[in-house]
Amino acid sequence: MQLVNGQPVSHVSVQDRSVLYGHGVFETVLVVARQPRLWNRHIDRLTRGCIALGLPFDANALEQDVRRLCQDSELDNFVLRINQTMGEGGRGYANPETPTGNRIVSIHETPNHDQALWRDGINLGVCELRLSSQPALAGIKHNNRLEQILARASWQAGWHEALLLDQNERVIEATQSNLFLVMDDGLLVTPDLSRCGVAGVMRDYILTEVASQLELHSETRDVSLEDVNNATELFVSNSVIGVWPVKQWETTRYHNHPVTHQILSYLTEHEVISPN
Amino acid sequence: MQLVNGQPVSHVSVQDRSVLYGHGVFETVLVVARQPRLWNRHIDRLTRGCIALGLPFDANALEQDVRRLCQDSELDNFVLRINQTMGEGGRGYANPETPTGNRIVSIHETPNHDQALWRDGINLGVCELRLSSQPALAGIKHNNRLEQILARASWQAGWHEALLLDQNERVIEATQSNLFLVMDDGLLVTPDLSRCGVAGVMRDYILTEVASQLELHSETRDVSLEDVNNATELFVSNSVIGVWPVKQWETTRYHNHPVTHQILSYLTEHEVISPN
Repeated sequence: MQLVNGQPVSHVSVQDRSVLYGHGVFETVLVVARQPRLWNRHIDRLTRGCIALGLPFDANALEQDVRRLCQDSELDNFVLRINQTMGEGGRGYANPETPTGNRIVSIHETPNHDQALWRDGINLGVCELRLSSQPALAGIKHNNRLEQILARASWQAGWHEALLLDQNERVIEATQSNLFLVMDDGLLVTPDLSRCGVAGVMRDYILTEVASQLELHSETRDVSLEDVNNATELFVSNSVIGVWPVKQWETTRYHNHPVTHQILSYLTEHEVISPN
Repeated sequence: MQLVNGQPVSHVSVQDRSVLYGHGVFETVLVVARQPRLWNRHIDRLTRGCIALGLPFDANALEQDVRRLCQDSELDNFVLRINQTMGEGGRGYANPETPTGNRIVSIHETPNHDQALWRDGINLGVCELRLSSQPALAGIKHNNRLEQILARASWQAGWHEALLLDQNERVIEATQSNLFLVMDDGLLVTPDLSRCGVAGVMRDYILTEVASQLELHSETRDVSLEDVNNATELFVSNSVIGVWPVKQWETTRYHNHPVTHQILSYLTEHEVISPN
């Protein structure tokens, strides 16, 4: 079930610049009880991405599409994928003078993960691929995702997520989620994303809302593998899963995840994710 | 006029991974007198790119598509654009187990550039954006082109092309072409592309065929702005234009381009580009 510019079609032109060059931005939004969660934060990030990449964007039209899909869906809980593309036109890499864009919204089943991943945690690997640094694109959830695809294809059996480092061995994020460290003084640390990485909406929510509500101090800064090894808890976050504690990282096994579970409870209580 | 998997349609699914993630590779092929030029080299690069990115690719089916379009086209001379995508499927960044792919071939008018660009040369600018380094993707003509789009959007009035440097101030390429320097001892130098940049088919042809035929020594190595400033000639290359000499670079004006014009004559005589 999907809408393209408000119409129930399932295709775009082969000359859309998203097909040609990955010229677009996207959002993955969790819908619980037909209500999109963290909606304003998703819209804010989408808007910033569209401005940075010169993409047309009609927030009102998108809200209408989303309202309609949430009403008409056969499911109460699902994942919405929003993709705003540049549309057709332009010559080679030169942008069209008056971009038309394509606004794509589609419904997908919520991934059916084992409940144990929230309770006991995940096995966290580390990818060999090193992320490239590009401040002009850092933070944006844009459609140029070949690095993530290569990284994902390299996962070893048994991994539930895997860390991505940059070419200076800084820890940046995980393949499809952001990383948080809980240090032994209780400080919450998450990597700085000014050179690469995707600034997740859930990461942002944890930093600006959950941490202060739970009276956790937080810091965004460069993170080394040594920092990761020194953390007393690790967890990953994204809009669909909320947070997953890390059970196994390299040779370290984490038996308790009190801070992660405190955050998870907050997310569930505030209906930001579906209760597990 | 275009074919998708051999069928005369003009669209792909909004869930094709090229739309979602720029998961594809492309070629821009010059066709003169209904014959694709440097065809084997284009096929070779496409094949290498498909292997690197896990894309399905049927070279025989592509040959059939191209033969058909070259026969049926209303134009004798045109540009073919080939796009091999991953197709639908997979979960998030994880590749589908049995990728179907979409093979897109479309016909476009040859750009109508002023003949003076080949004769007198171009104004070459330099972009502020610095290319990111990613050895896993370097050289491949893949569909993740946001850097080139941002760079192209930053061109100043009067520029015909613009240099792109990496984050260590190495000169890599131009926005939509490769760069060659002619040094005062006659040596032909072009930047090493093992960290970033697109390894152009015309660049490859010049290095492996034209240079030896014209008894020009050539070298692929790291290039600095100082090297560029010390060159006696500069030119850019791609499959559609062949080569363009540089007339103006920063404060330097080049009045003569003997080596560039020698290469240009070779390309024209060997019908690799259309005679100008």
